[in-house]
Amino acid sequence: MAYTIGIDYGTNSVRSIVVRSSDGAEIGSHVYNYPSGDQGVLLDSSDHNLARQHPGDYIAGVEASVKGALAEAADSGEFSADQVVGIGVDSTGSSPIPVDKNNHPLALQDAFRGNPNAGCWLWKDHTSIDEAAMITSTAAKMRPEYLAKIGGTYSSEWFWAKVWHCLNVDATVFDAAYSWVELCDFVPALLCGITDPLEIKRGICAAGHKGLYCDEWNGLPDKEFLSALDPKLAELRDRLYEKAHDASVPAGHLCAEWAAKLGLPEGIVVAIGEFDVHYGAIGCGVDEGTLVKVIGTSTCDCGVVSADKEIADIPGICGIVKGAILPGYYGIEAGQSAVGDIFKWWVEGVCKGDDQLHAELTEQASALKPGASGLLALDWNNGNRTILVDQRLTGLLLGQTLYTTQAEIYRALIEATAFGARAIIERIQEYGVPIKRIVCSGGIAEKNAMLMQIYADVTGCEMLVSRSSQSCALGSAISAAVLAGEHPDFATAQAAMTGTRDVSYQPDPASQAVYQRLYALYTQLHDAFGGVAGESDLGLVMKDLLAIKAGA
Amino acid sequence: MAYTIGIDYGTNSVRSIVVRSSDGAEIGSHVYNYPSGDQGVLLDSSDHNLARQHPGDYIAGVEASVKGALAEAADSGEFSADQVVGIGVDSTGSSPIPVDKNNHPLALQDAFRGNPNAGCWLWKDHTSIDEAAMITSTAAKMRPEYLAKIGGTYSSEWFWAKVWHCLNVDATVFDAAYSWVELCDFVPALLCGITDPLEIKRGICAAGHKGLYCDEWNGLPDKEFLSALDPKLAELRDRLYEKAHDASVPAGHLCAEWAAKLGLPEGIVVAIGEFDVHYGAIGCGVDEGTLVKVIGTSTCDCGVVSADKEIADIPGICGIVKGAILPGYYGIEAGQSAVGDIFKWWVEGVCKGDDQLHAELTEQASALKPGASGLLALDWNNGNRTILVDQRLTGLLLGQTLYTTQAEIYRALIEATAFGARAIIERIQEYGVPIKRIVCSGGIAEKNAMLMQIYADVTGCEMLVSRSSQSCALGSAISAAVLAGEHPDFATAQAAMTGTRDVSYQPDPASQAVYQRLYALYTQLHDAFGGVAGESDLGLVMKDLLAIKAGA
Repeated sequence: MAYTIGIDYGTNSVRSIVVRSSDGAEIGSHVYNYPSGDQGVLLDSSDHNLARQHPGDYIAGVEASVKGALAEAADSGEFSADQVVGIGVDSTGSSPIPVDKNNHPLALQDAFRGNPNAGCWLWKDHTSIDEAAMITSTAAKMRPEYLAKIGGTYSSEWFWAKVWHCLNVDATVFDAAYSWVELCDFVPALLCGITDPLEIKRGICAAGHKGLYCDEWNGLPDKEFLSALDPKLAELRDRLYEKAHDASVPAGHLCAEWAAKLGLPEGIVVAIGEFDVHYGAIGCGVDEGTLVKVIGTSTCDCGVVSADKEIADIPGICGIVKGAILPGYYGIEAGQSAVGDIFKWWVEGVCKGDDQLHAELTEQASALKPGASGLLALDWNNGNRTILVDQRLTGLLLGQTLYTTQAEIYRALIEATAFGARAIIERIQEYGVPIKRIVCSGGIAEKNAMLMQIYADVTGCEMLVSRSSQSCALGSAISAAVLAGEHPDFATAQAAMTGTRDVSYQPDPASQAVYQRLYALYTQLHDAFGGVAGESDLGLVMKDLLAIKAGA
Repeated sequence: MAYTIGIDYGTNSVRSIVVRSSDGAEIGSHVYNYPSGDQGVLLDSSDHNLARQHPGDYIAGVEASVKGALAEAADSGEFSADQVVGIGVDSTGSSPIPVDKNNHPLALQDAFRGNPNAGCWLWKDHTSIDEAAMITSTAAKMRPEYLAKIGGTYSSEWFWAKVWHCLNVDATVFDAAYSWVELCDFVPALLCGITDPLEIKRGICAAGHKGLYCDEWNGLPDKEFLSALDPKLAELRDRLYEKAHDASVPAGHLCAEWAAKLGLPEGIVVAIGEFDVHYGAIGCGVDEGTLVKVIGTSTCDCGVVSADKEIADIPGICGIVKGAILPGYYGIEAGQSAVGDIFKWWVEGVCKGDDQLHAELTEQASALKPGASGLLALDWNNGNRTILVDQRLTGLLLGQTLYTTQAEIYRALIEATAFGARAIIERIQEYGVPIKRIVCSGGIAEKNAMLMQIYADVTGCEMLVSRSSQSCALGSAISAAVLAGEHPDFATAQAAMTGTRDVSYQPDPASQAVYQRLYALYTQLHDAFGGVAGESDLGLVMKDLLAIKAGA
């Protein structure tokens, strides 16, 4: 019997699982909570946009979580570590780490201790808003083809904006960085003992979605373009990578040092790194016609279309990258910047509650009929990733009276995220990508039946739930299993190792009819405040408020 | 030394004060909390629009509060009840009471015990929205002059809408009602022993502002118009009144029975009844050029213009009625449907806090700079009385992020009410009514320095605060003092008996500049969602949500 290990780097912790290749059974699992900062995130109370992580947490985390998972697997009595044939790694992203010539994170050097700019620039760091806007406007002039693949707007969450912002605010760190490595590429390289950043096998997932990498234009953005941003970025290009790879190529093989540390066979295959949701899509059984939704603090939507087909650019969609999810397919990624985070803000940040209040409000909100609160909200408390691609948009709540309750607002916020989800589905379908099946994953999908029913009612689609609670780590383990030869291809591996649960959520026609009317109103607000409705200048209101706030 | 008594019927209680006529000193005061319902208000959990009161509370309340005030005054050692020369009464409104032929409230009859339709239809009862809309549309066709005096829209808070709604939902009560009497007219009639509703001296304040009464068209709406609404309303007209009176005419004189009950001299003058804020305006020293703001659960704005002048109709202003406040002056009334009620909703209804949280949020919100939260709200949780005259509008909050706090929203809601206040001031000034001075009254004006400073900064006007904490009751007492001959006229009486406090709030230029920008954005939202901005159909969003809610 063969097993692989899937390692999933989340926002607050890293989880490893031991997976049986024959059927996907998860026989061991262990979570390591990052010890640094606020639940693993380094924050700056004076700048809500800043979110960094300490790379030391990643290194400690891989050892602790893999050993813990192996120990749990061993407890099952049928497993020994020499049966492990491969390792796969996924992570949040874009989360680039500045490293020195030896692939050591700068943050681990004495000179940069305590400097957040030398750490990992976590996916949700939004300090690079100005740089992102400049990249967008420069590309619009010089390289419109760059924008076509990423939905028209470069995001402040992405690689080049972050690296450039580092150059602008902390040139010492930028100059000391020999290279920058995405977290999902860094960990596989670490396990393979690769000490030259130029030797790292970079995944096309991160490269294509966040780094403007495309084989059509010979990889990363050309030096002329990068020089137009800053000549130092053009210089950096030489210290990154020429070629990025899909999951048909391994990142390498487990080095002796890490094999010894982890108690695993030396030389087993290490899969190419992908982002969590991309491997998560594989773990949910993504194929052409299936949309995978990973619903957590934010939501990611993933789909695939055969690379043999022509595929149109889809405005407002985060990215369409060949090989980003499955080899041989275009990967399509969209998402919502905040979902669970909005509910958490409401329950914990505003209502000052805890898990119990989450449960109480869920119960009360479940008793409400669609439309009964008279409320309507926009799900933009953390900006809008898809389809407006505008981090600077903010929240809106409308319809409150003197009797509006916590639970009514809670439900309105859930509905708002459902409307946002529907806008994404409609945009993808509008451009000819079929969606026949929706498989959901993540804690919210598993635990919040009310939310899932609302999503079904708002979108008119059945909501399936992935069998595995660890779809991302499972997808990483599947990638390793395919590379290790346990399955001939991904489709076979997915058929054997993934599935959906018995419970699913069917749209209720009566609720659907009400939500159809509410969605029309949502769309009106969305277009007016998102700046889509040309006839209205309300599209400037949220930005004007931010300008006033910046001056206050 | 002469004294008069002012009796002020509020939403939750009635207060009586004993006032020295020479200088306005309040030497005795007593509050009687209405024992019925929820803090005196009869509610219906299935219909938030319903708000009624038990007339028995009014009758018990006048005795208890006057006796209590007299006892406190007597404790001062310099007073005896035979020095009282008059009584004035003010109340909320429009708060009509169905009465029988003997001027007894139907609610006190066994047949109607427990029937809220037989009680007083409290000012904030909004069950008559449909009837109000019909009155507006019928008047627009048949009698546009009716609408011109009330800002263009008849409100669901007003007399005819309420009476008609009673006819539509409970004809038994309507048919049993010989007449309907406003609370501010009912209590003076009670004290004067008037047992025939047709003998009651009705105040022009309630008649003109809420009953469509105008001397220009011979009093109440004509029968042809009322028949177009319902023939039974035309029949009712004969059982109401032909002539309404300003404060130069007494309601009558204290009858023997009530003189004995209260321990007061029989035959002393009882002033004509006015609404609380109108007598409150007198108690705040209203004159031409002074705007009085009574800031409480809702806000009322009152001004006067000499009746010798021509005065234009002002669109969106609740009413312009000759004699409604001061004899010889047009009274101008405007207002905001919810002010303190919005803060109460936020702190108590949503944040589940109490007075301590009010204080904490006030402290935290005080530390915020204007514009620093990035939030903007509309103050429409209870509709918009002025200048949109639309009870069906609802609240809006915009700009929230994942970090928005209770205190930031609290401040944004205060700012929203300040913006609403500015919209009223600008509308009044736009139509040629000078505002040289603003005097504020009410608990919020006295206690919430942050709010008062924000009001000054938003409006650009100094905010003065009335010396008396009981401006309404004081105004009633002033009216009685003038009628009793203690002062030759209201101006002399006001000069002697009213004043402002030492503390006042001056606009801060830096804050003013920020609020100028925020007000421009508020105006954009106000016009878009209030249906004023012709180019946008967002004006329908709030109504569409209510339609969906009604069907849910």
